[in-house]
Amino acid sequence: MTQDSPSLTLAEIAARLGAVLQGDGERAVRGLATLRDAGPDQVAFLANRAYLKDLPGTRAAAVLLHPDHAGTCPTACLTLDNPYLGYAELSRLFDPLAGREAPGVHASAVVAEDARLGEGVAVGPQAVIEAGAELGDGVVVGPGCVVGADTRIGEGSRLHANVTVYHGVVIGARVILHSGCVIGADGFGFAHDGRRWHKIAQLGGVVIGDDVEVGSGSSIDRGALGDTVIGEDVKIDSQVQIAHNVQIGDHSALAGCVGIAGSTRVGRHCMLGGGVGLSGHLTICDGVQVTGMSLVTNSIHEPGVYSSGTGAMDNAQWRRNAVRFKQLDDIARRLHRLEKAGRGG
Amino acid sequence: MTQDSPSLTLAEIAARLGAVLQGDGERAVRGLATLRDAGPDQVAFLANRAYLKDLPGTRAAAVLLHPDHAGTCPTACLTLDNPYLGYAELSRLFDPLAGREAPGVHASAVVAEDARLGEGVAVGPQAVIEAGAELGDGVVVGPGCVVGADTRIGEGSRLHANVTVYHGVVIGARVILHSGCVIGADGFGFAHDGRRWHKIAQLGGVVIGDDVEVGSGSSIDRGALGDTVIGEDVKIDSQVQIAHNVQIGDHSALAGCVGIAGSTRVGRHCMLGGGVGLSGHLTICDGVQVTGMSLVTNSIHEPGVYSSGTGAMDNAQWRRNAVRFKQLDDIARRLHRLEKAGRGG
Amino acid sequence: MTQDSPSLTLAEIAARLGAVLQGDGERAVRGLATLRDAGPDQVAFLANRAYLKDLPGTRAAAVLLHPDHAGTCPTACLTLDNPYLGYAELSRLFDPLAGREAPGVHASAVVAEDARLGEGVAVGPQAVIEAGAELGDGVVVGPGCVVGADTRIGEGSRLHANVTVYHGVVIGARVILHSGCVIGADGFGFAHDGRRWHKIAQLGGVVIGDDVEVGSGSSIDRGALGDTVIGEDVKIDSQVQIAHNVQIGDHSALAGCVGIAGSTRVGRHCMLGGGVGLSGHLTICDGVQVTGMSLVTNSIHEPGVYSSGTGAMDNAQWRRNAVRFKQLDDIARRLHRLEKAGRGG
Repeated sequence: MTQDSPSLTLAEIAARLGAVLQGDGERAVRGLATLRDAGPDQVAFLANRAYLKDLPGTRAAAVLLHPDHAGTCPTACLTLDNPYLGYAELSRLFDPLAGREAPGVHASAVVAEDARLGEGVAVGPQAVIEAGAELGDGVVVGPGCVVGADTRIGEGSRLHANVTVYHGVVIGARVILHSGCVIGADGFGFAHDGRRWHKIAQLGGVVIGDDVEVGSGSSIDRGALGDTVIGEDVKIDSQVQIAHNVQIGDHSALAGCVGIAGSTRVGRHCMLGGGVGLSGHLTICDGVQVTGMSLVTNSIHEPGVYSSGTGAMDNAQWRRNAVRFKQLDDIARRLHRLEKAGRGG
Repeated sequence: MTQDSPSLTLAEIAARLGAVLQGDGERAVRGLATLRDAGPDQVAFLANRAYLKDLPGTRAAAVLLHPDHAGTCPTACLTLDNPYLGYAELSRLFDPLAGREAPGVHASAVVAEDARLGEGVAVGPQAVIEAGAELGDGVVVGPGCVVGADTRIGEGSRLHANVTVYHGVVIGARVILHSGCVIGADGFGFAHDGRRWHKIAQLGGVVIGDDVEVGSGSSIDRGALGDTVIGEDVKIDSQVQIAHNVQIGDHSALAGCVGIAGSTRVGRHCMLGGGVGLSGHLTICDGVQVTGMSLVTNSIHEPGVYSSGTGAMDNAQWRRNAVRFKQLDDIARRLHRLEKAGRGG
Repeated sequence: MTQDSPSLTLAEIAARLGAVLQGDGERAVRGLATLRDAGPDQVAFLANRAYLKDLPGTRAAAVLLHPDHAGTCPTACLTLDNPYLGYAELSRLFDPLAGREAPGVHASAVVAEDARLGEGVAVGPQAVIEAGAELGDGVVVGPGCVVGADTRIGEGSRLHANVTVYHGVVIGARVILHSGCVIGADGFGFAHDGRRWHKIAQLGGVVIGDDVEVGSGSSIDRGALGDTVIGEDVKIDSQVQIAHNVQIGDHSALAGCVGIAGSTRVGRHCMLGGGVGLSGHLTICDGVQVTGMSLVTNSIHEPGVYSSGTGAMDNAQWRRNAVRFKQLDDIARRLHRLEKAGRGG
């Protein structure tokens, strides 16, 4: 990383984070690092007890931590109740990319005459903005992106390079779309006549709320009739597939490689682990967590943690057990017979 | 969605669909919706008994349904034997995108001198057509697409924005490729010398039949020696991975996140659910359905429905059961001993 | 495939491969094929006993095989100890693409003034090279690629069309990146304040070693603080997701659709089957193989083969068994009671 981070004093950091500083407020720092890696011009943080062992030996200029741990900190402290949240805020202060894009349309971009661009919009090289598209103030469209006809993107949103948004999509404010993600491709809809498939035109759209982030290479398909709807503050990781007419409630988070089949509704504040699959036409209530690679084939009506599958084991042991899985019903029936025989005797 | 749909009369719709109209043929409608959402200028459809409850209260101008349900329809009817197929056809009549592309090569596109373009071809902004490529009549290449050297694309096919097709690929007629999909990248082939990997050049190609659709972000790799072959009328959803030298039979459908390893042959009229994985070098016969997230490690020689895995349950219940999976062979052996002891006693 | 392959004599091939030729060294061949498909102007190979049955009937000009099988070969032989490795080398000799790119920057590409391009670099149409980027000698950047600011790419590396590399990424020599892959997008990091998510700026980078290959549509995310690190000679297939701060040891291979969660460290010479998922913060030692679609939730400290899941079976049989999985703990407890009763009686 050759990027230059901005320089900040500890007093400035304390003020921005609402943290209490114990130490020299004039000391300047230039970056963030872990307790173990931080040098004397960096701030470290302690947000997880597993790293408490690294606190005494840290060389950091200051450590962001909970007041309970200030006593054992060998250097300046920035104390606050939620140090992980403080770390998040501080990371953004040190982001060398923040505000880096110069506004303006690159000469090589192709922008339709009737597209409407807000103030301070930046459109990168080789990007394409189709007819009737509308980009709010401060929107950044990266190199190679394509924004389809009549699509609207809210203020402050950022499309990294090579993002594709189809026609008629509505995207909120401060949304971040990473490279290779595709918003608004046709959902997977076909009718069968007994011999072959007939395409069902996907006439709905996609509506994405404010403060959503979508990871690299993920797909959110447009609705068949109504819209696919992603709520506010939903966070979607890379390689995720969201089918037509899915609805995701506000503040939910989907880890990498999740797949959600058509018309399923996920509630608010849900968390889906990596590789989780949800069948179509389900309803998942608010506050549900599903652990990694689980398959959900029924609706869930109670908040809580849900799981399926079994973890990896030594292959020889696994072979012996996996073959028994196919005998499981037989085992249960034989056990029942023995129990009956025991009671009868 | 701000797109304008065309306006059609009920008589026109009946004629196009081969449906029998009961009602005012002069009435004009402008779109399609569900029974519940349709307004007085829209047509609805009933293709699934689960929605029969919505029929009496519909405000639709007309409903597409099976003759058996015409009696309970409160409004005009368009009856036909397969109303879902009728819905598919009607959706295409109302598609605002149909025929929207103006033919011609955008000034910013880069088309090799010796590429051959049929009549009515449209090449979008920032697209690249390499040497020797051949685009049939009416082909649409979206913005940012790259069509590799010597690749042939059949008439009426459409590449949405940012599709990549490598060199030497053969694509049939009326094929639809969605954004971010990649056709013809190298298959995953390496030889190991005991210390490190040596690349096997992937000298085969990809052949895609007529009427195929490939979803956003999916990959179909080129063959190592022979070709990877996708049959006619095969429908592939988003985020699918098809490895080198796979063959997919005509009319098969693959849902999102499916992965198929090298050289596996899938028959005709197969359906693979979301997230299904097929090991390499298998043969799957015609007419096989595999349910979502199943793992297939052996060839399948009988048509039918196949499954693996277990559905998600409450995490506490799951933990108790999953730990027992590792004891399953032991459980089976102990049960067998008890049975023997019982018979012996 | 309309590509022309170069013509080579059998003597030239023997010299390049270090193989022993039995037959006419002047005979010219133009390509490679399987034993079954090879014509009289092609070389075939035998690297797997399963294909020994095809040897007597081959029409190939010569066959690459182990000396043990030379006796039954009906045609000229090229014998060497590792014929699969010989096939790999020969495939590259016949690759019609090798060295095909003419050096130079296409007129439609956008290259920042301060980007540094080595000798013989080729930058394709519509590509974008951002400020401060550095391309080593002989690097090929395909059409539509975006190389971010301050990114460095080592000599001889090749980016196929529509690859995206973010800013501040370091890529080694002879690396191959396939279309649609994304290197350096933000990792999935957010802090929760009890109500909503706050983004953690991803300040680390990605470091990719020499001789790495990454398949189409795969994602390798940048680190939160330190870097995501891919070792030398690591081979990554299509549709793979590698999260922030993951480390992959040298010579490991990851098949399609693998997902690795944040901060997990995979050793050297590991092989992950298709669709394998690794939880976050794990350590997997050197020499581990994980079979397809397994879920790894604990660190692995012993080399060997690991597995989870169960293979697909007939759906009716599966339903009977899968329902018993939810009773497994109950079954184990009941069995234990019977055993105790038996011992007590």
